[in-house]
Amino acid sequence: MQNFNFVNPTRIIFGKGTISRLGPEAAKAGKKALLVYGGGSIKQNGVYNELTASLKKSGVAWVEHAGVKPNPVLSHTREGIAKARENACDLIVAAGGGSVIDEAKAIAAGARYDGDVWDFFSGKAGIKDALPLFTALTLPATGSEMNAGCVVTNAELAQKYSAHAAPLFPRVSVLDPETTMSLPPAQVANGAVDAIAHLIESYFTTADRDVEVTDELVHALARSVITSTGRILKDPKDYGARASMMWSATLALNGLAGCGYGGTSFPNHAIEHSLSALYDIAHGAGLAIVMPAWFKVHLEKAGPERLEKFGAAVFGVKGAPAAIEAFEKFFKAAGAPVRLAEAGIPAADIPRIAENAMGLIALWGMKLKKTEVEQILKKAI
Amino acid sequence: MQNFNFVNPTRIIFGKGTISRLGPEAAKAGKKALLVYGGGSIKQNGVYNELTASLKKSGVAWVEHAGVKPNPVLSHTREGIAKARENACDLIVAAGGGSVIDEAKAIAAGARYDGDVWDFFSGKAGIKDALPLFTALTLPATGSEMNAGCVVTNAELAQKYSAHAAPLFPRVSVLDPETTMSLPPAQVANGAVDAIAHLIESYFTTADRDVEVTDELVHALARSVITSTGRILKDPKDYGARASMMWSATLALNGLAGCGYGGTSFPNHAIEHSLSALYDIAHGAGLAIVMPAWFKVHLEKAGPERLEKFGAAVFGVKGAPAAIEAFEKFFKAAGAPVRLAEAGIPAADIPRIAENAMGLIALWGMKLKKTEVEQILKKAI
Repeated sequence: MQNFNFVNPTRIIFGKGTISRLGPEAAKAGKKALLVYGGGSIKQNGVYNELTASLKKSGVAWVEHAGVKPNPVLSHTREGIAKARENACDLIVAAGGGSVIDEAKAIAAGARYDGDVWDFFSGKAGIKDALPLFTALTLPATGSEMNAGCVVTNAELAQKYSAHAAPLFPRVSVLDPETTMSLPPAQVANGAVDAIAHLIESYFTTADRDVEVTDELVHALARSVITSTGRILKDPKDYGARASMMWSATLALNGLAGCGYGGTSFPNHAIEHSLSALYDIAHGAGLAIVMPAWFKVHLEKAGPERLEKFGAAVFGVKGAPAAIEAFEKFFKAAGAPVRLAEAGIPAADIPRIAENAMGLIALWGMKLKKTEVEQILKKAI
Repeated sequence: MQNFNFVNPTRIIFGKGTISRLGPEAAKAGKKALLVYGGGSIKQNGVYNELTASLKKSGVAWVEHAGVKPNPVLSHTREGIAKARENACDLIVAAGGGSVIDEAKAIAAGARYDGDVWDFFSGKAGIKDALPLFTALTLPATGSEMNAGCVVTNAELAQKYSAHAAPLFPRVSVLDPETTMSLPPAQVANGAVDAIAHLIESYFTTADRDVEVTDELVHALARSVITSTGRILKDPKDYGARASMMWSATLALNGLAGCGYGGTSFPNHAIEHSLSALYDIAHGAGLAIVMPAWFKVHLEKAGPERLEKFGAAVFGVKGAPAAIEAFEKFFKAAGAPVRLAEAGIPAADIPRIAENAMGLIALWGMKLKKTEVEQILKKAI
């Protein structure tokens, strides 16, 4: 087990009917919020009404910044920062999925920074400060509601890059599983794939294979995601499954699932970000395409041990190839694409995708060559 | 899944050679520490030297408060409070196991309170403030290094009671598994039993049996504790096992393992506290005696479902009676007593123990009758 630091100060309020508790929490931090949300699903599922009523009752005024895209873009983030400044917002409230929360984080940091917010993503500057952030999560997937990272796409440069710093931890996140009841199946699938992806990156790239406690936690969360997804697809109104899925996805990327591994990397994410940046496909869909392919190449390099362990503990299968098959089977059953063609990405684009991925790979300090990325992507044809 | 709140602000610094990192952290909170420790094992294992060198280097002066007992007592706690006040300490540093950290928490709260510290334990007053606390853990067991609770024994009243409040969260806890290498086998056993006890109380008293994610986490941590204990007993210098054990015990009572259960209670702890209060036996030893007996009575009342689930997932056994046997077998293999007589407690004392337990049962608002406590204890004869 490698040395590690762990801290996670985000306060979670979890359960039915909890959206209205965000107002009083937000009121502790300020008087005027930038209210960040996406395409308006929060107006259909009642979250918008509950949340704004709660802000009003708590004496928090707000300015709206709607229209966050599923892969949040830099241009819209910059608009949000301008709006937060013009209106002298002293806090941010985000309602939606990981994309909304990610853009809200970038706005929170950008509003307290004199330069351009992209500096944080390109590695030019570190985040030292941010407006306090409060979130109401409506899509279990990215874990952004309880971590200090965010991902934004610079469409001009076709770069989907990330930033990470302690001031980005949300102060309070409200997780009401009932708000996820109306999610379309594709978003359920993408969320499940994303949570699984967060669990496997560190597990499979660990520098230390004797980390029994974290291995057990990773298996536990993966099993919970898989079981919950199956139940949700069967019965979208299954509250217990929605709740387990929501909390599992949060825990999958709040820091716990990597403790003690040391020196891990995020190869699947690095490659997927290029698929999202170039083709604007859902992050979860891209990951479902990359992961089985990556496993096949990884198996050749790293040996079967970890895949065997994971496969036995999570899928109840024997052997590394069977584990890879089980991953694919789960992604397919959830409704996610597992090959490039299924997402309309031509095999001829592989060199271009690999070229794009090299930017993030360099930025993240990973030792992955362009030929290796191409090799992985070829397995996804 | 029941609604819940979760927050845990304690910063963890985990791994080899980390003790010296506590000084710089403590220096952020103050200039003069009360240094709380126990019988002096930290002087034998090098922790004292490393820690005080680090405090010195960071410009933190300290006053010593040594001699904390394994079941920390109120009289010594009061002395610590007086010492902290006389010396105008502005922070507390605790080095040792759960007892040391628990007493340090009580001192931290007592030093910022005008009345008597026992008020917090008797339910007369709530903790509103406490001196900032920094800990170096040397015995994995109680989880006190990452939670907001503490237990102190009032020897005059023979009451081992607890207090719980957000200001008691340690600011920073340093967990160096190498400091646990020299623990005697009995302390390894007691620690393992205590961690298991923390995992099972909520799991078995849950008001809601559809909490897949937390069930999975509980199973995962229990398996990790059991596997690590076996490895440690075989090879006390097995660092990987020491590390997994240490982090598992912390996570077993940092709030995670109860999320979503709702309305749980701590019957085994309530009864064990009387054994420790009356006979001054180790908490872990008392729990190993109470748990199998409690399971037998609980099985009759609550049915086999949860025991079957836990037994299958953690011990790989089928059926509730086999699960209870497996618990006993694990406690025995670890070297813990599983019957009253093994701890020198006469069966004739059962009414007296039950009478004592009723105080805490009432204080914790539990629905356990004296006759039921006696019934449980009789199964431990």
